[in-house]
Amino acid sequence: LCSYTDRTQLRLNTFFARLHFVLSEISTRAFLPVDGEAELLVAHLELENAESVPGVGVRTYEEFPGDIPPELWMLRTCSGRRVAIDRLDGSLLEDARSESDRLDLVDHARPERVRKQPEEIALIREATTFADMVLTRLLAEGPSIVRGGGTEAELMADCADHARTHLLGEHGDAFAGTKCGITASVHSGPRAALPHGAVTSRRPQPGDPIIAGIGCSLGGYHAESGVTLVVGQPTRAQLDVMSAMADATAATVSALERGAPCAEVDRAARDVLRSAGLGESLRHRIGHGMGIEGHEAPWLSPGDATPVEPGMVFSCEPGVYRPGLDGWRTIDTLIVGPEGVEVASSFLSHHPPERRVLAV
Amino acid sequence: LCSYTDRTQLRLNTFFARLHFVLSEISTRAFLPVDGEAELLVAHLELENAESVPGVGVRTYEEFPGDIPPELWMLRTCSGRRVAIDRLDGSLLEDARSESDRLDLVDHARPERVRKQPEEIALIREATTFADMVLTRLLAEGPSIVRGGGTEAELMADCADHARTHLLGEHGDAFAGTKCGITASVHSGPRAALPHGAVTSRRPQPGDPIIAGIGCSLGGYHAESGVTLVVGQPTRAQLDVMSAMADATAATVSALERGAPCAEVDRAARDVLRSAGLGESLRHRIGHGMGIEGHEAPWLSPGDATPVEPGMVFSCEPGVYRPGLDGWRTIDTLIVGPEGVEVASSFLSHHPPERRVLAV
Repeated sequence: LCSYTDRTQLRLNTFFARLHFVLSEISTRAFLPVDGEAELLVAHLELENAESVPGVGVRTYEEFPGDIPPELWMLRTCSGRRVAIDRLDGSLLEDARSESDRLDLVDHARPERVRKQPEEIALIREATTFADMVLTRLLAEGPSIVRGGGTEAELMADCADHARTHLLGEHGDAFAGTKCGITASVHSGPRAALPHGAVTSRRPQPGDPIIAGIGCSLGGYHAESGVTLVVGQPTRAQLDVMSAMADATAATVSALERGAPCAEVDRAARDVLRSAGLGESLRHRIGHGMGIEGHEAPWLSPGDATPVEPGMVFSCEPGVYRPGLDGWRTIDTLIVGPEGVEVASSFLSHHPPERRVLAV
Repeated sequence: LCSYTDRTQLRLNTFFARLHFVLSEISTRAFLPVDGEAELLVAHLELENAESVPGVGVRTYEEFPGDIPPELWMLRTCSGRRVAIDRLDGSLLEDARSESDRLDLVDHARPERVRKQPEEIALIREATTFADMVLTRLLAEGPSIVRGGGTEAELMADCADHARTHLLGEHGDAFAGTKCGITASVHSGPRAALPHGAVTSRRPQPGDPIIAGIGCSLGGYHAESGVTLVVGQPTRAQLDVMSAMADATAATVSALERGAPCAEVDRAARDVLRSAGLGESLRHRIGHGMGIEGHEAPWLSPGDATPVEPGMVFSCEPGVYRPGLDGWRTIDTLIVGPEGVEVASSFLSHHPPERRVLAV
């Protein structure tokens, strides 16, 4: 039984073309038998959406919470007596075991999800161009906004709205009903030292770094691009940090070889920052998988031994956070191909550190 | 141990003022001991956000997934040996039990979450006014958009953008960093028969119903308002459906008495639609709780015996769906007070069925 957890409308391209549904507490799952027809197990209110999917059976339950938890109904309803389920709330585990002869908590769909198909990669690549567009706009319009006393929130709104308009104009019709949008975060100055800083009404000041982290969703797929800009001319010390981060990204690209454990990629990338004397300023892993969810397995992080394979898509986001002083993060979207790694996002490569400047 | 599951930045007003964090796979939880200081258990990258919360301790783990699953680290780290945890992935259950003398999967915070505090209700009430604003705009501008050949997607964009601009202009600064936005769904004609229909480039036609369902988030709290409009003059039969739905809403308000089981409220409300001969066209429960999440317990649905109490907030959304013909849904936000039920959304009461018309 496969569930999906992104709280959005999406298409499950991995398994079925054209499944549109609303993700919520009302569980939608697929039953994939070893032999025989796959089935969608959905609430009654998703009936037509499920029926529009070709080549799959449909069974519906009445409602959530309902008189029986939907996952237990699914286990009772599906024809499998020996079942693997990708994810199950712990409170249901005991009852679920009694509904099956054997129940394994294993996500057999994960290998399919982590190796993206060409159509999925095409969507991610296209999404990346609109994340880049936000940054290009920020670089172009940011100086006048900052000179005019603009805030972090105003910078973010201007550049995100710009790219969102282009995204919806170009793709809104074709991808109506799927998640299609821009998310952006812009925070500056000493507050850039917070890895997850809120966007506020702070006005960036000369000498400040401004961290801009951008996500784009298209057809239910996700990509990212991000940069740290400097207000006015960057100092030598600031350029050194940016240079070390570019080196960490290069190390990530080099380390993403077929078969390398994901945790080793993280270690190799962050070792570059440690060697540059920035080890005390690291606060998070180098990256995460992306696809149907903005963050998904595998993880370029301690604890994930998954071997790298062609078709995987990762963020690469070296971050340096120095409380009381400043903070820095860049983000690329990396696509692992059979012949090597493609850096799908282009803003950083087109704008080396000395050009990441809001001239005010 | 308490988790939160909404994938957004929010403030956990229920327990702590001023906790800002990013919800993701990187778990943020609170440990609430029977005696002693509460603790926030967060990833290292949320350290400063957690430290800014007054009167609470902070412990950090390195990373997700990390060498030990964060929830197991939390159970090992917190001082409790007999622990209740609100939600735990089934795959961790066995290991989690071995970390504790006793482990119950019970959400002891739920009674606090379902009974909203006055500050929480104030946010929900204010959010409702912007959900209403979307509908007011749709009624005002919809006719010219439809006359000009506008699509469902264009109708949605116009009215949602209008309210979003007002929302952010009025509250964007004060609530920076929390979820503050508008979500809208507009679908029409025979496609209105889909309870969860996608928004498409379909052009509404004379005689069509147009279902508009609106959500507004403000300061991390959620509210809804929704209506079904008719393009051109509604027929007697259409007015009869709208009238039956208004009766179902009135029945919901009447049934929301202290102590009534939530499932009984659902039954009483939908019995009104069944008595009107619409029983075959029901596809979902009458409503759901709202607060930190857009959908949260308790549920006005089969299977939820929770007794109604003052401080609870519910959507009330009677829906009638007739495949091949049409579909209808209205949504109110209801706040249960000590003296009775407040209908916080005002669009429906200000616009009785005969005024729900896009005159083209």
